[in-house]
Amino acid sequence: MRAVDIIEKKKRGNSLTKEEIEFIVYGYTNDIIPDYQMSAFLMAVYFQGMSKEETAILTQTFVNSGDTVDLSAINGIKVDKHSTGGVGDKISLIVIPLVASLGIPVAKMSGRGLGHTGGTIDKLESIKGFKVELPESEFINNVNTYKMAITGQSANLVPADKKIYSLRDVTGTIDSLPLIASSVMSKKIASGADAIVLDVKVGTGAFMKNLEDARELAHTMVDIGKSLNRETIAVITNMDQPLGREIGNANEVKEAIKVLKGEGSEDETTVALTVATCMCILGGAFREFNEGYEYLLNLIKEGKAIDKFKELIKAQGGNPDVVDNPDILPEAKYHMEVKAKKSGYVEALNATMIGKSAMILGAGRTKKEDKIDFSSGITLTKKIGDKVDINDTLCILHTNKEDVDDAIYIVLEAYKIKNEIPKPVKFIYEIIK
Amino acid sequence: MRAVDIIEKKKRGNSLTKEEIEFIVYGYTNDIIPDYQMSAFLMAVYFQGMSKEETAILTQTFVNSGDTVDLSAINGIKVDKHSTGGVGDKISLIVIPLVASLGIPVAKMSGRGLGHTGGTIDKLESIKGFKVELPESEFINNVNTYKMAITGQSANLVPADKKIYSLRDVTGTIDSLPLIASSVMSKKIASGADAIVLDVKVGTGAFMKNLEDARELAHTMVDIGKSLNRETIAVITNMDQPLGREIGNANEVKEAIKVLKGEGSEDETTVALTVATCMCILGGAFREFNEGYEYLLNLIKEGKAIDKFKELIKAQGGNPDVVDNPDILPEAKYHMEVKAKKSGYVEALNATMIGKSAMILGAGRTKKEDKIDFSSGITLTKKIGDKVDINDTLCILHTNKEDVDDAIYIVLEAYKIKNEIPKPVKFIYEIIK
Repeated sequence: MRAVDIIEKKKRGNSLTKEEIEFIVYGYTNDIIPDYQMSAFLMAVYFQGMSKEETAILTQTFVNSGDTVDLSAINGIKVDKHSTGGVGDKISLIVIPLVASLGIPVAKMSGRGLGHTGGTIDKLESIKGFKVELPESEFINNVNTYKMAITGQSANLVPADKKIYSLRDVTGTIDSLPLIASSVMSKKIASGADAIVLDVKVGTGAFMKNLEDARELAHTMVDIGKSLNRETIAVITNMDQPLGREIGNANEVKEAIKVLKGEGSEDETTVALTVATCMCILGGAFREFNEGYEYLLNLIKEGKAIDKFKELIKAQGGNPDVVDNPDILPEAKYHMEVKAKKSGYVEALNATMIGKSAMILGAGRTKKEDKIDFSSGITLTKKIGDKVDINDTLCILHTNKEDVDDAIYIVLEAYKIKNEIPKPVKFIYEIIK
Repeated sequence: MRAVDIIEKKKRGNSLTKEEIEFIVYGYTNDIIPDYQMSAFLMAVYFQGMSKEETAILTQTFVNSGDTVDLSAINGIKVDKHSTGGVGDKISLIVIPLVASLGIPVAKMSGRGLGHTGGTIDKLESIKGFKVELPESEFINNVNTYKMAITGQSANLVPADKKIYSLRDVTGTIDSLPLIASSVMSKKIASGADAIVLDVKVGTGAFMKNLEDARELAHTMVDIGKSLNRETIAVITNMDQPLGREIGNANEVKEAIKVLKGEGSEDETTVALTVATCMCILGGAFREFNEGYEYLLNLIKEGKAIDKFKELIKAQGGNPDVVDNPDILPEAKYHMEVKAKKSGYVEALNATMIGKSAMILGAGRTKKEDKIDFSSGITLTKKIGDKVDINDTLCILHTNKEDVDDAIYIVLEAYKIKNEIPKPVKFIYEIIK
């Protein structure tokens, strides 16, 4: 077999066999096939796509390229979730205790974030004492005891995808559906998931800018799940503006607490409950979506959801007092109110720009080595559809930096205020299974 | 400027600017842009193509990447020719003396061949004493004196294309029209051509398998010529079977002599005269194709063409007696007649397979370092349309090797004999200017 023939075959739009996909992926991972052949191959995949079968084989090949996490010591169906990424997305913080409340094991492995804010484990680290690197035995033990645990990824998962992703990043081959889908799904499968809920974001702040593309990605991932015997549900959710009202690390923990207490914003609560309900369905707790949704809403009302979150914090060594007194979370030195320059209605609120602004304030990382400032972030006072009078506070910037003119400028650009009342925002577009 | 943005731009089907094309080509040639970005770029070009303007800029960028040959010391319009390659193609040997006979300077620079037979200078080396590496002054001097000279390429011409071609070869990006066209045209322009005649082969033995593709390539190259002020004519010629009756090095010299004496096969003569006529038109000798063609045919009949070839051989130190006595050319030890296994008409004669067979006999090189056996080759007794009786000689294999069963097997596979008389073969499809 020769790499050039596999490239040619894909270039002509033909389907590759398992042997050919393995040859090119393992050959590349083992430094036998050079970068320049892989990048030509990836560009051919961008243009010609991959069939369902090819995409499933590619995913399994990625999984097989490295270690896999063995969760067989955990009883029950291990349901994982994944978000394709957006601004203000603290859904994982909310769904872990919610789903665990029903006795469904949540064994969450999470990476640190690169970008506007940290990842889920960065956010949890803003809670004093919270251990995010659990030894395997403790992780498994906690899941069996509390039905939940979260830890950083330590194993050498999907090295093939890692190497290929780096190459895609510099060769204009990021935006290929089969490559995105197999990348996401291989990581979940290698992490030991029996079933997967995907939160596919769509909108100005998401990777997928329109519903059609998001739907295609969702279907591609659900199909991979089916092919590889992992029940998968994809929820397509709105990312035309940041989710909820808080962006940052401590900020997002605060908002997650609010949601779990039943005091959260409508969009954050709806998306979190939808994702959690889907996870519970896959975990075998419900058959009907509405039944599950109502049940989880009740758990929140009864205070059981927030108690479970307290239990998670305690179990991982964190200070559970943050739940009753969120003000003990890291606090920034400066809080700057950004005022509206005109009256009207918020018509648009560019999530990417808000994310960029949060990063400038100190909430995110541009490089792996960067340190996150847990206390910095943004509180959105006004969101799409809100009425605004001139000089009303649009949002509050929290930071320890003195000069944040750039952040203010970007935030002001992110808000589009018009005279007309905009169309109401949809939180959930579709559930695909 | 970043290479990845240029890749993305081309991937989306947008046209690149001069600055962007120069950035990526020079960046790659100077080892600043890595192989993997160039190969992704080339694959994007394969799928999205290039506009006329981009292709002309790419060609000029290739030319500027290295040395260019200065032919300004030669009087007159320097007309060069190029063939896209086929089996039995000895057209250059014939057109050099023909065109020079009219006082039009032919300053031919030619590479050595890789493949089924040698290149034009390899073929000429089968004439004892023929010097194919002339110092620049002698080359220029000969052209001014005899209106013709041929030499190997010594200068560092189009290094960018050379480097990119090597990469295309291993990344499935050979068959891109703008890349093929700019590769050919940049070499001709860097070699100092004022005007160019392109012999674009089409058929089973050519790179272009169908007329439509050949026409598109021809137009692309003619357009480059127009854009870069080099008058260019493309002749689309048949390569469904080998050209003429001789394949090999000494063999092809013999056949060129025959054509120049007016004793050549019809296809070889027609194609050679057509190419030569176009060269003469660009050189300013004629305005009308038919007038030129008849004039050249007359030169052959009057013996002036063969005399001019004798002059070329003498001028470059070769033994001119080969013209009157071709048998003094290198002679193989064995001559094997391959006999027909059935009666009928030759319906097809696969040129690629005949070429492969000639290579096995010793006529070509697989690696640069390989030595060519000038005496080996194939004489085709039967060609498409010829009537064949069982046991008739289809062709004669000339070789110094004892075991050539493979070559015989391939030759027999190359001949398709059917009961029906096939359609007559067209030699010239189109002339595009």
